[in-house]
Amino acid sequence: MAQKTGIPKGTRDFSPIEMARRNYIFDTIRSAFHLFGYKQIETPAMENLSTLMGKYGEEGDKLLFKILNSGDFLKQVTDEELLERNCAKLTNKISEKGLRYDLTVPFARFVVQHRNELTMPFKRYQIQSVWRADRPQKGRYREFYQCDADVVGSDSLNNEIELLSLIDMVFGMLGINTVVKINNRKILSGIAETIGAADKIVDITVAIDKIDKIGLDNVNAELREKGLSEESVEALRPVLTLEGDNNAKLEAISEFLKDSETGLKGIEEMREVLNGIDTLGHRAKMEVDISLARGLNYYTGTIIEVKAADVEIGSITGGGRYDNLTGVFGMPGLSGVGISFGADRIYDVMNQLNLYPADVTCSVRVLFVNFGEKEAMQAMKYVKALREAGIPAELYPDSAKLKKQMAMADSDRIPYVAFVGESELGKDSIVVKNMTTGDQQTLTLAQTIELLK
Amino acid sequence: MAQKTGIPKGTRDFSPIEMARRNYIFDTIRSAFHLFGYKQIETPAMENLSTLMGKYGEEGDKLLFKILNSGDFLKQVTDEELLERNCAKLTNKISEKGLRYDLTVPFARFVVQHRNELTMPFKRYQIQSVWRADRPQKGRYREFYQCDADVVGSDSLNNEIELLSLIDMVFGMLGINTVVKINNRKILSGIAETIGAADKIVDITVAIDKIDKIGLDNVNAELREKGLSEESVEALRPVLTLEGDNNAKLEAISEFLKDSETGLKGIEEMREVLNGIDTLGHRAKMEVDISLARGLNYYTGTIIEVKAADVEIGSITGGGRYDNLTGVFGMPGLSGVGISFGADRIYDVMNQLNLYPADVTCSVRVLFVNFGEKEAMQAMKYVKALREAGIPAELYPDSAKLKKQMAMADSDRIPYVAFVGESELGKDSIVVKNMTTGDQQTLTLAQTIELLK
Repeated sequence: MAQKTGIPKGTRDFSPIEMARRNYIFDTIRSAFHLFGYKQIETPAMENLSTLMGKYGEEGDKLLFKILNSGDFLKQVTDEELLERNCAKLTNKISEKGLRYDLTVPFARFVVQHRNELTMPFKRYQIQSVWRADRPQKGRYREFYQCDADVVGSDSLNNEIELLSLIDMVFGMLGINTVVKINNRKILSGIAETIGAADKIVDITVAIDKIDKIGLDNVNAELREKGLSEESVEALRPVLTLEGDNNAKLEAISEFLKDSETGLKGIEEMREVLNGIDTLGHRAKMEVDISLARGLNYYTGTIIEVKAADVEIGSITGGGRYDNLTGVFGMPGLSGVGISFGADRIYDVMNQLNLYPADVTCSVRVLFVNFGEKEAMQAMKYVKALREAGIPAELYPDSAKLKKQMAMADSDRIPYVAFVGESELGKDSIVVKNMTTGDQQTLTLAQTIELLK
Repeated sequence: MAQKTGIPKGTRDFSPIEMARRNYIFDTIRSAFHLFGYKQIETPAMENLSTLMGKYGEEGDKLLFKILNSGDFLKQVTDEELLERNCAKLTNKISEKGLRYDLTVPFARFVVQHRNELTMPFKRYQIQSVWRADRPQKGRYREFYQCDADVVGSDSLNNEIELLSLIDMVFGMLGINTVVKINNRKILSGIAETIGAADKIVDITVAIDKIDKIGLDNVNAELREKGLSEESVEALRPVLTLEGDNNAKLEAISEFLKDSETGLKGIEEMREVLNGIDTLGHRAKMEVDISLARGLNYYTGTIIEVKAADVEIGSITGGGRYDNLTGVFGMPGLSGVGISFGADRIYDVMNQLNLYPADVTCSVRVLFVNFGEKEAMQAMKYVKALREAGIPAELYPDSAKLKKQMAMADSDRIPYVAFVGESELGKDSIVVKNMTTGDQQTLTLAQTIELLK
């Protein structure tokens, strides 16, 4: 009996036209990475579970895809342990590898493992799939690509400026209008410190983020619920009612943070970064956004998030500075800053706005019609010459009905069709038809190459 | 306590220089695929185990990496089943997905699943990793890339000729000298039929393959051991002592197979394919090799295998024609022909012969030295202009000691270093040093772009 076909939920097949579009995005990002001097690395799809577990929180541990050990995987499990049916515990015994969950932890592991071969500062990029056993839903997949660029081993804010410049170049090349939101973790710390609630930084950030949606009164109610004192809630008011452009916001926050060394350091960093990218010039709107948090327990300085200006979708790129990427692997104090392009969301944006150039296609420039054995052999010689001149070309393999052959040219949107029939045999003569205009002309091979180049 | 770092055995990290070299190979293969009109698809890393199991033989089933189900994976397992400790049986209950083992079965699944969207003949290529829980050893990995091109839905031998032409172009571009061995499954059937041992085709092929190493007498002894009659052994002699060039071999075999319709059909196909590729012209040596078998129960016509002429290593590319790729998924009678480039072996060959062009590198064209805040800002503007002109360039992020900055240019083999010091500030003036010759000149930005382009 025939088997059912299908793929695991949350995964995708990519058709030729989808691949052509995705390659356009990946190639654009890759070419920008190269222009900026980031160097590519690749790490294995599988990492030891000891490398992955505990790095993404308790929820993350559950979302890791785990590989069943090969052979007799019950060897080290006692009957008692089996009957206990403790899946988490049992997993440790029957699985020692997992699929990578992001590119950051593998990168940290890579840096530590190869520390003696790397020259610091080290600028790396990595474009690979990651896997998460998340509940699949619209726009969320169990297998998706990340495109990460990081510099480690340098404290300089020039790296932040460069990354903003890189982001600007990539979205400029892709034609996506963006708003880049910028914050600094030190400003958030300074705010919490200033209102006397240093331990409530997460709640405060969540509250700031909600102000536009639920209003000041509701935010304050929530803050009280979270245990903030009346004084703290009152003290936070200026931050919740920030207005004006970047400079006005920074002025106000600066005044607010005047007694917080950390906070003022954050303001200073933010100013330097903004001045830098303004001096270089940029296409995107740069927006100071005090509500931006992104992985608070991970980032320590600049935080960046990019939104598409013309499409309602989550952030399409994000990143920031961290101070302890590799500490957990025994190499403390390595500072770095990095960004991650969300290729799958960028793909969705590009599709929605139809931003692909007309020449992003999966097809050849010209299809030679097959009129039979002799003609096909002659056509293959022409096809070979075209390919050697760098022109994608193909011969229809079978001498099928002309209608069928032309249908392929249509469905693949091949711009030219070439005919080498009996009357063209033995002559340097090709009939070339422009499929858009319908024009048809008889050309030599050299002329055909010239036309199709 | 710091964790140990390391990766699962049989897997690899790729450093920037390794990636640059690998990308050179992959980009070459990909560009050839495009020139020939093959269209790229991608399939998920994970397939349902029902898709994968039973497709690679009993041994293959064992070598599949299986993904442990998420959550309470013991839900459907009884205590009795647990205590039975039958790992194979238990695997079916606690795992429903596996990592792809090759690109052929996922392609077959893809074709059947998307049959209504595809126009036949369909030429696809696919470059993705595969995973096998093989015992790792030199040159054999648990994660490696395959680069496959297949045409399905066409019987024409033009496809075989095209694939030979494709192989020839790829290895020509890479500069690897090759010997392409060609056989036809129908010839092997014809031989077995002719000597009255149609059921012994595998043993006969193995024997033919050994003749050079162990000699005629030993081969004959082996054949008798395998149960071939004395008459069959005697009848096989002409095949075992084939000599001469392709034509001579084909003549002799043709004579031998004169009463086998299948065998003669094989000869005819082989002649057509060889004539075709000879007419087109080729760089590789094309060699008729009756001992070539490759997956006998899979291929039905032409069989191809490529060896590197200058390095002792297994085959670096292989393929052939099959008649029933998709039958197991309920779509019988789809004929196709395909080849697979062994990227990792090709990488080994390229490394051994050092065949990379000099410009295969992971580094930028020019490094700007960082002399401090003001100078760095000026340099960043130049760097931006260079990148916009398509020239990979970077600024050393920190104003570190000159020696340290120059050391990076050295270790990354960056061909030019640029200096924008105090005396260059406010002028359109860059000091550019050629790191090979040591020559240094003062240029405008426009001249620098001209020089580095």
